[in-house]
Amino acid sequence: MMKIVIIGSGNVATHLTIALHNAGYEILQVYSRDITNADILAQMVDAAAIDDIGNVNVTADFYFISVSDRFIDDVARQMPLVKGVVAHTAGSVDMSVLNKFDLHGVFYPFQTFTKDKELDFKEVPVLVEGNISHARRVLMEVADAISNRSQKATGEMRKALHISAVYACNFVNHLYALADELLAHKELDFSLLKPLILETTQKALSMKPHHAQTGPARRFDHQIMKAHMDSLPTKSFHHEVYALMSESIMKMYDAD
Amino acid sequence: MMKIVIIGSGNVATHLTIALHNAGYEILQVYSRDITNADILAQMVDAAAIDDIGNVNVTADFYFISVSDRFIDDVARQMPLVKGVVAHTAGSVDMSVLNKFDLHGVFYPFQTFTKDKELDFKEVPVLVEGNISHARRVLMEVADAISNRSQKATGEMRKALHISAVYACNFVNHLYALADELLAHKELDFSLLKPLILETTQKALSMKPHHAQTGPARRFDHQIMKAHMDSLPTKSFHHEVYALMSESIMKMYDAD
Repeated sequence: MMKIVIIGSGNVATHLTIALHNAGYEILQVYSRDITNADILAQMVDAAAIDDIGNVNVTADFYFISVSDRFIDDVARQMPLVKGVVAHTAGSVDMSVLNKFDLHGVFYPFQTFTKDKELDFKEVPVLVEGNISHARRVLMEVADAISNRSQKATGEMRKALHISAVYACNFVNHLYALADELLAHKELDFSLLKPLILETTQKALSMKPHHAQTGPARRFDHQIMKAHMDSLPTKSFHHEVYALMSESIMKMYDAD
Repeated sequence: MMKIVIIGSGNVATHLTIALHNAGYEILQVYSRDITNADILAQMVDAAAIDDIGNVNVTADFYFISVSDRFIDDVARQMPLVKGVVAHTAGSVDMSVLNKFDLHGVFYPFQTFTKDKELDFKEVPVLVEGNISHARRVLMEVADAISNRSQKATGEMRKALHISAVYACNFVNHLYALADELLAHKELDFSLLKPLILETTQKALSMKPHHAQTGPARRFDHQIMKAHMDSLPTKSFHHEVYALMSESIMKMYDAD
């Protein structure tokens, strides 16, 4: 059975490590700059915790670098040269950052992770890239072991996926946060939006979102848009967001 | 049993009429400028179809004006004076547009409706406003008959709700459409986003969206944001939307 070292102890590292452990892989070590964090995750999967990158076990078959994007380069430089496959888990970082390792690649789980929230990794698409066919094969094997939705993807495809995730996850959540701000201002509860949010989500997933579009901007109803903007609070970017999103919707459907 | 006249045959009118019919109310008439549309809905609820507003039955107990926001004023002017309660169903239109009727108000179902898509009206919040207590009482009675989530709300509250719905429904869907545009460009399927969209939605609904925020902007990761923007297509408003939403997120968390 393949032996794995995990570099990182954040949200992605945690979920990935647990999924690998549950799939029967042996987790040798968990590294974190903070030994307490390393220890919490290591204990969950019967691994050793380390906080010195120089102590990475060089005999493992597989190394996951699952740290913040901007630290991947540093971690790769500090890691001893290893013979196993080294992969990072970042959507927007080029594979070439791991060039010093003979076998390297990217293992990108396309999902948003919360540490304390369980999730079915089988449903998480995993996008895989490898520098040579052997690396690709090993990466796909591991991906298939923990997910039903693994596929190969180039760096360009991964970047498009990552940006689309920023839209559909981060920006969407921010719109929810702005909506909550508006409601709280009038002492209304965010849960009022629940049926509408669920319906919107289901619609977008069951038909093309392009065809599911509704609302004042889609109807080019300038009167309502103006009334809305006139009543928006001046704090945050409410005005700017309302104006730009409306303009963007109108542009998308202008040619229809 | 209360007798009801429906003015309008669009998405909201259709779902509302069916819910009222299912709750046992008698639908006397369905009005639409287009008699074919009036007829389709009228047949579903054993009502008469009319396309002349002058032919509205003046003996009904309740009149729903469920037409596009900008036509509510016109419809109200053209309607004969009636003794029953007259309510429109728009979030952003003031109740005073119905001042000519002694008993009037607003009956705002806070949901996005698609004509051919069934939906459980019991879960739809209905926001109710009435000009006098008798109107309010009748409106709340009807709201309670078709929904478990009816509550009173002033015009100001309704407007905040409507705008929050534009954010959480219309703008969110537009972000999905923009994401789909990016993915299609790389021949990737929108369904790849499905687990991520479901997870994001569940997180926002189970915790405050303010606390669920993740992503490059939340981490103030300018390097990734720049890389993303450099790779965005120049068509549509991709650059502008990415830049503004990121700026808005950073502003929201700057003081944390």
